[in-house]
Parts: sequence; structure tokens; C-alpha cells
Amino acid sequence: MSTSNAANKALADEASRARALIRQETHTGPTAGLAPGCVQANLMILPQALAAEFLLFGQRNPKPCPILAVTTPGDFTVAAMGSNIDLRTDVPKYRIWRHGELVSEPLNLLDTWRDDLVAFLIGCSFSFEEALIADGIDVRHISEGRNVPMYRTNIPTRGTPLLNGPLVVSMRPMKAADAIRAVQITSRFPSVHGAPVHLGDPALIGIQQLDRPDYGDAVTIHDDEIPVFWACGVTPQAIIDNVKPEFSITHAPGHMLITDVSNASLASF
Amino acid sequence: MSTSNAANKALADEASRARALIRQETHTGPTAGLAPGCVQANLMILPQALAAEFLLFGQRNPKPCPILAVTTPGDFTVAAMGSNIDLRTDVPKYRIWRHGELVSEPLNLLDTWRDDLVAFLIGCSFSFEEALIADGIDVRHISEGRNVPMYRTNIPTRGTPLLNGPLVVSMRPMKAADAIRAVQITSRFPSVHGAPVHLGDPALIGIQQLDRPDYGDAVTIHDDEIPVFWACGVTPQAIIDNVKPEFSITHAPGHMLITDVSNASLASF
Repeated sequence: MSTSNAANKALADEASRARALIRQETHTGPTAGLAPGCVQANLMILPQALAAEFLLFGQRNPKPCPILAVTTPGDFTVAAMGSNIDLRTDVPKYRIWRHGELVSEPLNLLDTWRDDLVAFLIGCSFSFEEALIADGIDVRHISEGRNVPMYRTNIPTRGTPLLNGPLVVSMRPMKAADAIRAVQITSRFPSVHGAPVHLGDPALIGIQQLDRPDYGDAVTIHDDEIPVFWACGVTPQAIIDNVKPEFSITHAPGHMLITDVSNASLASF
Repeated sequence: MSTSNAANKALADEASRARALIRQETHTGPTAGLAPGCVQANLMILPQALAAEFLLFGQRNPKPCPILAVTTPGDFTVAAMGSNIDLRTDVPKYRIWRHGELVSEPLNLLDTWRDDLVAFLIGCSFSFEEALIADGIDVRHISEGRNVPMYRTNIPTRGTPLLNGPLVVSMRPMKAADAIRAVQITSRFPSVHGAPVHLGDPALIGIQQLDRPDYGDAVTIHDDEIPVFWACGVTPQAIIDNVKPEFSITHAPGHMLITDVSNASLASF
């Protein structure tokens, strides 16, 4: 076995152990910090009738909606992302939505799963944040123990007949030299939002107040820093909210699906 | 011959034709726009006694002083950069300096060349500007027909015992999305200054007035643009000026050495 394969096997074992704790409902909290080095994914589960439309939305909007895997209808496994993943049990907390209303936050989907459901695993900024931190860049919401600040913008997404709406961005404040380095680092990770979409003046993308994010928490921005904005995985959630589908399931914020895939393997070069 | 080799041969022929016009002193003006696709180089010629020190400076400061080639003492050819280059005749206009004073601007060095001279070919932003323009980015000083604005900063270079001084930067104003793209594009060209060193607030790097550059011309900056700063090849010239060497030769500003090497071949990925 090559060193690289041995390292990947060790990561996959770590992911498997984390999922086992979650499956047993021993771990029911956020997944940040679990199985470091492994890709954590956003989850969007839709009835088959809406799935093709959502896939098209992802194809047209790879920066806010980078789709890592799609299941076949009714299948709750995702072999491409982990050998023993069960999507009904392996997320610490789910959110069930009916006609756009949050109806429950169960710890599993064993009673809820339907044969017409299609699951989308969507890339998450945890992967690139790990690379930023490894390079010595302060990721403010992590060092301040908060959720990343997110904002609705005036940038339209490339819509489909049913799915339309503005881009949501996450923001990380940095010194300019770190922002330049962050562009380089995140450019290597196109499947987890890739390079920033904007930096500097927030008003140019329709954000009025950085200290009042639309989602998540405000973070400190120092005088010698600029805000750097990335396309955010909340975008597809916000856009699905708009159409108020009869039924859908997502992960609860921060309660991600841990996969066997290494963050390193997502680097495009 | 592969397509790539045929393309490179065509570029080298174009460079050779341009150098022939310059050697005959038919073309004596700036080289911008000549032999598109070919690397144009800054030239610094020093007595052997100072050459090792300058090479060390370049090694320590690859962003402002990316050394593409160094000649052996007394040799006025540079086979690595072009099969028939003669450094005594192939630059349209030279500048001869004695003890830090500009003493003449000859069209050739046939009477001036010395057996102890070492020539340094240094990467030039023309190479990455070609890539920016190819991507549809407006390079302001080019679209406005001016010289790029350059500024002394408060960023120190990594000095050598003799060679010390602040970094000089060039500035190109851009919309934020173009600035992000420009970071990606120029990161691919580490041997021609690479990624920017700063963007946004000029005061943070000791620049007081963008409309009063220390070298070159001011350019228009629109309200929705930020200034983006790259390490500049004027830095080593300014630093050599500080030590007022007994004798040195440079190209006249904008009057570069055209080489056979393709800009495309400088891309690191």
C-alpha cells in the first residue's frame, strides 16, 4: 500500500468512527473538528420530482452549489463518498421541511425516509478553511468561536424555471496579503466554493451592514482588514425555501455529513 | 514537429525579426506590442564585482527581482533566452550609469562593452499583462496609453550587505471580481512578479497619493475599483541606484530585450 493510500485509509477509518458515534446518537452536536482532514458535506434531500431541477441549478451555479454526489432515488447510501454511509442516520441532526416550514429536527430519518427521495451532497467551506488555517491565516469566526457571517447579495444566480434567487455569501475578514493568499488557496478547491466572488466594499454587492449578517454571527473586522466574500452553500437552501416544496430534508446548520474523502483530494492542482 | 514546437518556432522567428530591426537601429523606440507572445526582459548589467551580490538580492527577493538568466562575465550572448541574442545591440536604447549618474543613452554598447560585465535578464510585467488582457481584464495604463504607475512603499526588501531599500510596486486598478481573477492569473507566473503583494488601502503600504506616482504616470481609478499592487522590476534599479556603483548599464524604460521564450511557457501550471 502506498503512503498516500495508507493515509487515505487512516482518514476513512477516522470518518467511519465519527459516523458510528453519530449513528448511535452518542454525538448529536455540530461536526466542526470531527475527523479532521475529511470532507464534510451539506445535505439536501428532495423528492425526485424536484431533483432534476435542483441538479440543473447546481450545474449552472457551481460556486454556491458545488454538488459532490447525487444518490439514485430511494437509495440512502453514497458509496462514492464513503463505503458505509447511511444518509438516514449519519448526520447528527436533520431538519424536515413541509411547504417551506421547518416541522422537526430529528436525530435520524428512519421513520421519515421515502423511496422517491434523492440526496445531494454539497461541498462545504470547512474543506477550504482547513487549508487556510494550515497556511497560518486567521479564520476569524473560528478563532472567535462563532458561526460564519453570511449575507444576501444583489448578485443573481443563474436560475432554472423553478429555482431563482440571489447569491448568499459568507465573509471572512483578512489583511490584504492574506486575502491574496486566500484567493490562491481557495482557487485550488473549486468543488468547495473555490475562489472568492468579491472583496472590499460590501455595498458593491448589495450588502449594507457587515455587522448585521442575514445568517450566522457578526465577527470582528480590524482597521487594516478587508472583507472577503465567498459563494455560500446557504444559497441553494435559500432558493429551495422560495419554492416551498411539499417535502424536503436538510442537515441542521453545522451538523454535516462526514465523508471518507480527504480534503486534500479535492485540490485541483 | 508538434503543434507546440511549431508555435514556439514561429514565436522565436518573430522575436528574431524584431531583434534584427532593433540591431539595425531601424526600431529605436519602446518595445510594447513587438513580438506578441514573447517574453520581454528587463536588463541589468553590472561589473563582476557587484554581480554576486545582485544575484543574492534576486534570490532573496524573487517577486520584485525575478532573474530569468545570468550571463558569464564578458559574454554578451544568452543562449537560454534566444539563439542569436547580442546584448550589446539588441535593446533599442540603453542607459549608462557612472557612480549613480545617468551619463548617456546609446542605441548600442559596441564601444562600451567590457570583459568584466555580467548581464541579468529580469522578468517583466508585460508577460502577465498579456495574460490579463487575454482574459478580458482592462489593464488601465495600456488602455489609457500611459506608463504603469509605480510607487515606493514602506515594505522593506530582504537586503544583502550592500543592497537594501524599499519595495517599489506597480498599480493596476480593477473591479474586485477582476482583482480576484488577476490574483489567479498572475499566481501562475511567479517568474514575472507573480501574485499581487497588496490590494485596497494604499496607506497600509506607505503610499500617500495614488494620483502622484513616484515613477510612471497616474491612471484613472473608478469608484467601483480597488488598486491592486504588484512587486515591480524598478525595485532592483532603485536599490542599485542607492549604492552608486562605479559603472552599470540598464535598458531605457520601456525599451526591453525581446527573447525567444514564450510567455505561455512561464506559466507554472
